[in-house]
Amino acid sequence: MDLVTILSTTPWANAGGAIGAGLAAVGAGIGIGQVGKGAVEAIARQPEAVNDIRSNMILAAALIEGVALFGVIAGILAMFV
Amino acid sequence: MDLVTILSTTPWANAGGAIGAGLAAVGAGIGIGQVGKGAVEAIARQPEAVNDIRSNMILAAALIEGVALFGVIAGILAMFV
Amino acid sequence: MDLVTILSTTPWANAGGAIGAGLAAVGAGIGIGQVGKGAVEAIARQPEAVNDIRSNMILAAALIEGVALFGVIAGILAMFV
Repeated sequence: MDLVTILSTTPWANAGGAIGAGLAAVGAGIGIGQVGKGAVEAIARQPEAVNDIRSNMILAAALIEGVALFGVIAGILAMFV
Repeated sequence: MDLVTILSTTPWANAGGAIGAGLAAVGAGIGIGQVGKGAVEAIARQPEAVNDIRSNMILAAALIEGVALFGVIAGILAMFV
Repeated sequence: MDLVTILSTTPWANAGGAIGAGLAAVGAGIGIGQVGKGAVEAIARQPEAVNDIRSNMILAAALIEGVALFGVIAGILAMFV
Protein backbone atom coordinates (compact mmCIF):
# COMPACT_ATOMS: atom_id res chain seq x y z
CA MET A 1 0.00 0.00 0.00
CA ASP A 2 1.51 3.30 -1.08
CA LEU A 3 1.01 6.84 0.05
CA VAL A 4 -1.58 7.60 -2.57
CA THR A 5 -3.85 4.74 -1.56
CA ILE A 6 -3.55 5.66 2.06
CA LEU A 7 -4.39 9.28 1.57
CA SER A 8 -7.36 8.38 -0.59
CA THR A 9 -8.83 6.09 2.06
CA THR A 10 -8.30 8.49 4.94
CA PRO A 11 -11.76 9.43 6.32
CA TRP A 12 -11.31 13.21 6.17
CA ALA A 13 -15.04 13.59 5.61
CA ASN A 14 -15.90 11.88 8.90
CA ALA A 15 -13.54 14.12 10.87
CA GLY A 16 -14.78 17.28 9.17
CA GLY A 17 -18.42 16.27 9.49
CA ALA A 18 -18.11 15.69 13.22
CA ILE A 19 -16.33 19.04 13.70
CA GLY A 20 -19.05 20.78 11.69
CA ALA A 21 -21.81 19.17 13.76
CA GLY A 22 -20.01 20.28 16.91
CA LEU A 23 -19.77 23.85 15.60
CA ALA A 24 -23.51 23.85 14.92
CA ALA A 25 -24.10 22.81 18.54
CA VAL A 26 -21.84 25.67 19.67
CA GLY A 27 -24.05 28.08 17.73
CA ALA A 28 -27.23 26.68 19.27
CA GLY A 29 -25.71 26.88 22.74
CA ILE A 30 -24.66 30.52 22.37
CA GLY A 31 -27.94 31.59 20.81
CA ILE A 32 -30.53 29.74 22.90
CA GLY A 33 -28.42 30.48 25.97
CA GLN A 34 -28.69 34.22 25.38
CA VAL A 35 -32.42 34.01 24.72
CA GLY A 36 -33.02 31.87 27.81
CA LYS A 37 -30.89 34.14 29.99
CA GLY A 38 -32.80 37.18 28.79
CA ALA A 39 -36.13 35.43 29.33
CA VAL A 40 -35.58 34.45 32.96
CA GLU A 41 -34.22 37.92 33.76
CA ALA A 42 -37.24 39.47 32.02
CA ILE A 43 -39.63 37.31 34.05
CA ALA A 44 -37.90 38.49 37.22
CA ARG A 45 -38.36 42.12 36.19
CA GLN A 46 -41.97 41.80 35.01
CA PRO A 47 -43.48 38.59 36.42
CA GLU A 48 -46.99 39.28 35.08
CA ALA A 49 -45.69 39.23 31.47
CA VAL A 50 -44.54 35.63 31.79
CA ASN A 51 -46.80 34.32 29.02
CA ASP A 52 -45.65 36.82 26.41
CA ILE A 53 -42.02 36.33 27.41
CA ARG A 54 -42.25 32.54 27.32
CA SER A 55 -43.91 32.44 23.90
CA ASN A 56 -41.32 34.82 22.43
CA MET A 57 -38.47 32.83 23.99
CA ILE A 58 -39.77 29.62 22.43
CA LEU A 59 -40.18 31.39 19.08
CA ALA A 60 -36.59 32.68 19.00
CA ALA A 61 -35.21 29.39 20.32
CA ALA A 62 -37.06 27.45 17.63
CA LEU A 63 -35.55 29.65 14.92
CA ILE A 64 -32.04 28.96 16.23
CA GLU A 65 -32.82 25.28 16.75
CA GLY A 66 -33.91 24.95 13.13
CA VAL A 67 -30.61 26.17 11.68
CA ALA A 68 -28.52 24.29 14.24
CA LEU A 69 -30.25 20.96 13.62
CA PHE A 70 -29.85 21.61 9.90
CA GLY A 71 -26.12 22.12 10.50
CA VAL A 72 -25.84 18.88 12.49
CA ILE A 73 -27.64 17.05 9.70
CA ALA A 74 -25.14 18.53 7.22
CA GLY A 75 -22.30 17.22 9.39
CA ILE A 76 -23.77 13.72 9.51
CA LEU A 77 -24.49 13.90 5.77
CA ALA A 78 -20.79 14.57 5.13
CA MET A 79 -19.93 11.12 6.53
CA PHE A 80 -22.16 9.24 4.12
CA VAL A 81 -22.01 11.25 0.89
CA MET B 1 -2.66 5.71 -8.66
CA ASP B 2 -0.25 8.56 -8.04
CA LEU B 3 -0.23 11.31 -5.48
CA VAL B 4 -2.03 13.75 -7.72
CA THR B 5 -4.93 11.38 -8.24
CA ILE B 6 -5.19 10.71 -4.54
CA LEU B 7 -5.18 14.31 -3.53
CA SER B 8 -7.77 15.06 -6.18
CA THR B 9 -10.10 12.32 -4.93
CA THR B 10 -9.73 13.13 -1.23
CA PRO B 11 -13.14 14.25 0.12
CA TRP B 12 -11.89 17.65 1.25
CA ALA B 13 -15.19 19.08 0.02
CA ASN B 14 -17.22 16.98 2.46
CA ALA B 15 -15.10 17.99 5.43
CA GLY B 16 -15.05 21.67 4.45
CA GLY B 17 -18.74 21.71 3.62
CA ALA B 18 -19.72 20.32 7.01
CA ILE B 19 -17.44 22.80 8.81
CA GLY B 20 -18.93 25.63 6.76
CA ALA B 21 -22.48 24.54 7.61
CA GLY B 22 -21.52 24.45 11.28
CA LEU B 23 -20.05 27.95 11.07
CA ALA B 24 -23.30 29.20 9.51
CA ALA B 25 -25.20 27.75 12.48
CA VAL B 26 -22.78 29.55 14.82
CA GLY B 27 -23.59 32.83 13.11
CA ALA B 28 -27.33 32.23 13.33
CA GLY B 29 -27.01 31.33 17.00
CA ILE B 30 -25.11 34.49 17.88
CA GLY B 31 -27.39 36.73 15.85
CA ILE B 32 -30.85 35.38 16.69
CA GLY B 33 -29.69 34.92 20.27
CA GLN B 34 -28.97 38.62 20.60
CA VAL B 35 -32.27 39.57 18.97
CA GLY B 36 -34.24 37.18 21.18
CA LYS B 37 -32.45 38.36 24.33
CA GLY B 38 -33.17 41.98 23.48
CA ALA B 39 -36.81 41.17 22.69
CA VAL B 40 -37.67 39.43 25.96
CA GLU B 41 -35.91 42.16 27.93
CA ALA B 42 -37.84 44.78 25.97
CA ILE B 43 -41.14 43.04 26.73
CA ALA B 44 -40.26 43.09 30.43
CA ARG B 45 -39.59 46.83 30.28
CA GLN B 46 -42.66 47.75 28.22
CA PRO B 47 -45.17 44.87 28.38
CA GLU B 48 -47.92 46.68 26.44
CA ALA B 49 -45.64 46.91 23.35
CA VAL B 50 -45.43 43.14 23.04
CA ASN B 51 -46.97 42.95 19.57
CA ASP B 52 -44.59 45.49 18.04
CA ILE B 53 -41.61 43.88 19.74
CA ARG B 54 -42.58 40.39 18.63
CA SER B 55 -43.14 41.35 15.00
CA ASN B 56 -39.81 43.19 14.86
CA MET B 57 -38.02 40.27 16.51
CA ILE B 58 -39.44 37.86 13.94
CA LEU B 59 -38.43 40.23 11.15
CA ALA B 60 -34.81 40.49 12.30
CA ALA B 61 -34.59 36.78 13.10
CA ALA B 62 -35.96 35.89 9.68
CA LEU B 63 -33.29 38.03 8.01
CA ILE B 64 -30.55 36.22 9.94
CA GLU B 65 -32.21 32.85 9.34
CA GLY B 66 -32.28 33.46 5.61
CA VAL B 67 -28.56 33.97 5.28
CA ALA B 68 -27.73 31.16 7.70
CA LEU B 69 -29.90 28.62 5.91
CA PHE B 70 -28.30 29.75 2.65
CA GLY B 71 -24.89 29.08 4.24
CA VAL B 72 -25.94 25.60 5.37
CA ILE B 73 -27.25 24.88 1.89
CA ALA B 74 -23.90 26.02 0.46
CA GLY B 75 -22.14 23.64 2.85
CA ILE B 76 -24.33 20.72 1.78
CA LEU B 77 -23.94 21.72 -1.87
CA ALA B 78 -20.16 21.53 -1.51
CA MET B 79 -20.48 17.77 -0.93
CA PHE B 80 -22.29 17.13 -4.21
CA VAL B 81 -20.85 19.59 -6.72
CA MET C 1 6.73 0.44 9.07
CA ASP C 2 7.01 3.31 6.62
CA LEU C 3 5.27 6.63 6.36
CA VAL C 4 2.47 5.35 4.18
CA THR C 5 1.47 2.61 6.60
CA ILE C 6 1.59 5.00 9.49
CA LEU C 7 -0.60 7.55 7.76
CA SER C 8 -3.09 4.89 6.68
CA THR C 9 -3.52 3.56 10.18
CA THR C 10 -3.80 6.98 11.78
CA PRO C 11 -7.38 7.33 13.10
CA TRP C 12 -8.15 10.77 11.66
CA ALA C 13 -11.90 10.10 11.91
CA ASN C 14 -11.64 9.23 15.58
CA ALA C 15 -9.71 12.42 16.29
CA GLY C 16 -12.14 14.59 14.36
CA GLY C 17 -15.14 12.90 15.93
CA ALA C 18 -13.82 13.49 19.42
CA ILE C 19 -13.06 17.14 18.60
CA GLY C 20 -16.58 17.60 17.24
CA ALA C 21 -18.16 15.99 20.29
CA GLY C 22 -16.05 18.24 22.50
CA LEU C 23 -17.18 21.32 20.56
CA ALA C 24 -20.81 20.29 21.06
CA ALA C 25 -20.16 20.07 24.81
CA VAL C 26 -18.58 23.55 24.70
CA GLY C 27 -21.75 24.88 23.10
CA ALA C 28 -23.98 23.21 25.68
CA GLY C 29 -21.78 24.53 28.48
CA ILE C 30 -21.91 28.12 27.22
CA GLY C 31 -25.64 28.00 26.58
CA ILE C 32 -26.96 26.20 29.66
CA GLY C 33 -24.44 28.15 31.73
CA GLN C 34 -25.93 31.45 30.58
CA VAL C 35 -29.49 30.24 31.18
CA GLY C 36 -28.65 28.90 34.62
CA LYS C 37 -26.77 32.07 35.56
CA GLY C 38 -29.67 34.21 34.50
CA ALA C 39 -32.14 31.98 36.35
CA VAL C 40 -30.46 32.10 39.74
CA GLU C 41 -29.95 35.86 39.42
CA ALA C 42 -33.59 36.26 38.46
CA ILE C 43 -34.76 34.20 41.43
CA ALA C 44 -32.62 36.37 43.69
CA ARG C 45 -34.26 39.50 42.29
CA GLN C 46 -37.84 38.18 42.34
CA PRO C 47 -38.07 35.20 44.69
CA GLU C 48 -41.87 34.82 44.39
CA ALA C 49 -41.53 34.13 40.62
CA VAL C 50 -39.41 31.04 41.23
CA ASN C 51 -41.86 28.61 39.61
CA ASP C 52 -42.11 30.54 36.35
CA ILE C 53 -38.35 31.05 36.25
CA ARG C 54 -37.59 27.40 36.96
CA SER C 55 -39.95 26.09 34.27
CA ASN C 56 -38.54 28.51 31.68
CA MET C 57 -34.97 27.62 32.62
CA ILE C 58 -35.69 23.91 32.15
CA LEU C 59 -37.38 24.65 28.82
CA ALA C 60 -34.44 26.63 27.40
CA ALA C 61 -31.87 24.17 28.76
CA ALA C 62 -33.73 21.26 27.18
CA LEU C 63 -33.63 22.97 23.77
CA ILE C 64 -29.85 23.43 24.02
CA GLU C 65 -29.38 19.92 25.34
CA GLY C 66 -31.21 18.47 22.35
CA VAL C 67 -28.86 19.96 19.76
CA ALA C 68 -25.73 19.33 21.84
CA LEU C 69 -26.54 15.66 22.40
CA PHE C 70 -27.19 15.36 18.66
CA GLY C 71 -23.75 16.88 18.02
CA VAL C 72 -22.08 14.42 20.41
CA ILE C 73 -23.86 11.55 18.66
CA ALA C 74 -22.53 12.83 15.33
CA GLY C 75 -19.01 12.85 16.80
CA ILE C 76 -19.36 9.28 18.03
CA LEU C 77 -20.86 8.26 14.68
CA ALA C 78 -17.74 9.55 12.89
CA MET C 79 -15.64 6.90 14.62
CA PHE C 80 -17.71 3.97 13.35
CA VAL C 81 -18.86 4.98 9.88
